[in-house]
Amino acid sequence: MTSDKTAAASTLEALDTPCLLLDEPRMQANIERLKTRMARLGVTLRPHLKTPKSIDVARLLMETPAGPAAVSTLQEAEQFARAGVRDILYAVGVSPAKLDRVLALRAYGTDLTVVVDSVAGAQAVAARSRAAGAPIPALIEIDSDGHRAGVRPDQAELLCAIGRALEDGGAQLRGVLTHAGESYSSPDEDAIRTMAERERRAAVDAAQALRAGGLPCPVVSVGSTPTAMFAENLDGVTEVRAGVFVFFDLFMAGLGVCRQDDIALSVLTTVIGHQPEKDWILVDAGWMAMSRDRGTAGQPVDQYYGVVCDVQGRPFADLVLKQTNQEQGIVMRRPGTSAPLPQLPLGTRLRILPNHACATGAQHDSYHVVRGTSPEVLACWPRFRGW
Amino acid sequence: MTSDKTAAASTLEALDTPCLLLDEPRMQANIERLKTRMARLGVTLRPHLKTPKSIDVARLLMETPAGPAAVSTLQEAEQFARAGVRDILYAVGVSPAKLDRVLALRAYGTDLTVVVDSVAGAQAVAARSRAAGAPIPALIEIDSDGHRAGVRPDQAELLCAIGRALEDGGAQLRGVLTHAGESYSSPDEDAIRTMAERERRAAVDAAQALRAGGLPCPVVSVGSTPTAMFAENLDGVTEVRAGVFVFFDLFMAGLGVCRQDDIALSVLTTVIGHQPEKDWILVDAGWMAMSRDRGTAGQPVDQYYGVVCDVQGRPFADLVLKQTNQEQGIVMRRPGTSAPLPQLPLGTRLRILPNHACATGAQHDSYHVVRGTSPEVLACWPRFRGW
Repeated sequence: MTSDKTAAASTLEALDTPCLLLDEPRMQANIERLKTRMARLGVTLRPHLKTPKSIDVARLLMETPAGPAAVSTLQEAEQFARAGVRDILYAVGVSPAKLDRVLALRAYGTDLTVVVDSVAGAQAVAARSRAAGAPIPALIEIDSDGHRAGVRPDQAELLCAIGRALEDGGAQLRGVLTHAGESYSSPDEDAIRTMAERERRAAVDAAQALRAGGLPCPVVSVGSTPTAMFAENLDGVTEVRAGVFVFFDLFMAGLGVCRQDDIALSVLTTVIGHQPEKDWILVDAGWMAMSRDRGTAGQPVDQYYGVVCDVQGRPFADLVLKQTNQEQGIVMRRPGTSAPLPQLPLGTRLRILPNHACATGAQHDSYHVVRGTSPEVLACWPRFRGW
Repeated sequence: MTSDKTAAASTLEALDTPCLLLDEPRMQANIERLKTRMARLGVTLRPHLKTPKSIDVARLLMETPAGPAAVSTLQEAEQFARAGVRDILYAVGVSPAKLDRVLALRAYGTDLTVVVDSVAGAQAVAARSRAAGAPIPALIEIDSDGHRAGVRPDQAELLCAIGRALEDGGAQLRGVLTHAGESYSSPDEDAIRTMAERERRAAVDAAQALRAGGLPCPVVSVGSTPTAMFAENLDGVTEVRAGVFVFFDLFMAGLGVCRQDDIALSVLTTVIGHQPEKDWILVDAGWMAMSRDRGTAGQPVDQYYGVVCDVQGRPFADLVLKQTNQEQGIVMRRPGTSAPLPQLPLGTRLRILPNHACATGAQHDSYHVVRGTSPEVLACWPRFRGW
């Protein structure tokens, strides 16, 4: 009754819509750009694989097939471990109940590092390490901008207490980690540069506090896509984590971190109707295909649910996916524009650039790999999800 | 390396988090309530299976194991057809490229009906029916509130032209369909009742226009969860479609369509950290587990990313999931509240009620079935997704 939808189709016109397209040359250019920056700044790039959730993309991103890499779930860690990645940082605070899966991954041969930011958390990791006779390595999360979790870099006593709870309790203190989440709301490049320096400073200061307390701190890990793209000095930092840079999205373009034509991800959709009196074009990409992410709503240019392009990926002037239902989207001209409404008959295929690559990607089970304006589909790369 | 996560775990404490919980008694009460209403109003309930995407839930929802049912994608139609559902309405305007899959489903023995709202769309359905020697039945979508697709009920000439394009071209005109999408922004129950009457009126008027033109119109299909819950008269209507009523959510509660303790769906999460100076509690449910849906942001009471309950499902006073990252959420007290911050140590399990059952459900691959405050997990029901 159904065709095998995991097989690569030969052309864009043959794909079932909606589906996810990945422009490989754009992605490769995005990867090269950040790798070159990191090499120049003398730090290791630890790509965050929460964005692609695909081993095919991960292999293009990582320095070696064994890593290093960062993940946001143990499901990602397990999937990438099975595919041969050996150096994995689970970059979200670990709960005690997840430590059995962490130990299983380490027993499998994966050098999995966890993150803690409290004495209670460190004690839980240490107790489980001791019970298993297998020290789990951990980074201490540092709060560089009041954005989410972490210990402030000036809390030297607390930092050392966490470090000692790990080291003395049977686990291993491997270093510090911070993430400048506030960089996502920076007004301009200068502000991002300031954030990058604050992020670096927080991690380096925390590392110094630990070392002054007689504790080891080999790893000093920082990162977010905006700060990674604009950092000018990473002295004292050993590695940078970044994820969304591999695809980019309208939010990052709105932040000035990329250009709109660096965006490698789009959703292929089909025109399914018109409301001629309203100048509406209905398509089969609703919020299920785009995600509910409206991150650009708070930016100077609201992109609604996405920027509408022709099937070759060329944006129409001022045409956006303005509203969505679950499986239906309404394409309209931007309010106030004088751009003409393109004639797009029933069945026309379009590409829509997404607000947020991580969220839109997560709505799909595979990437259909394309090259620029070519109608050919080169491959179908599976994505995974879950926890 | 990993446990079999599709098997039912025995207790809530044993589940990996985040994951989706389904309170079966609440769901059963929701189903009974609407079924009783529909029986009283003398119409067939055609449950919209886009919300559950699960055959286990579908079987509890449908009048018979063979249907009737409505779906929003052909993937849903194919999945439910394989599970024995025979009467399926694909309730989103069909694109010509999807007609091969429609014909394959019909050849499989499924009475699949499609939706069109233009002469061009009707001609495409008719042409494909003729070529296949298999008439595809179609409903004409009626625009009852300017909300999305459809022909206005007063456009009798256009309605009849579409009907004739179907009937004369080799397809089959089966009736009309409308959806009062605007009911989701109704200020109160009276407004929803008015919407329900407008929805009924639009469908019945359109059916009359077709019949006056000498065309058949056996099916008069209306529906949305709010109008289904408040309609007082459905004369002339043959069936009502509704989806979200099976689980309900904070958006529906905010609209007055259900009470908060009717909500059958929640996300189980674990406390992974604290920021004591800020009264923040960090949990492992971020937007990936909750979805990016912020539908309650435009309602009188903003529920942020969800209402926080204890592991037994009892809401804490004024505690909400205020912010989310991809895999991390920040639980805070509602601005301005004097409610105390509960003591929730690292590892504590919580349930979070979602803004939007369809969007939150779609982030998960299964339902863990529970009963009220019991810690026991009775079953694990798979969900599917994709197109």
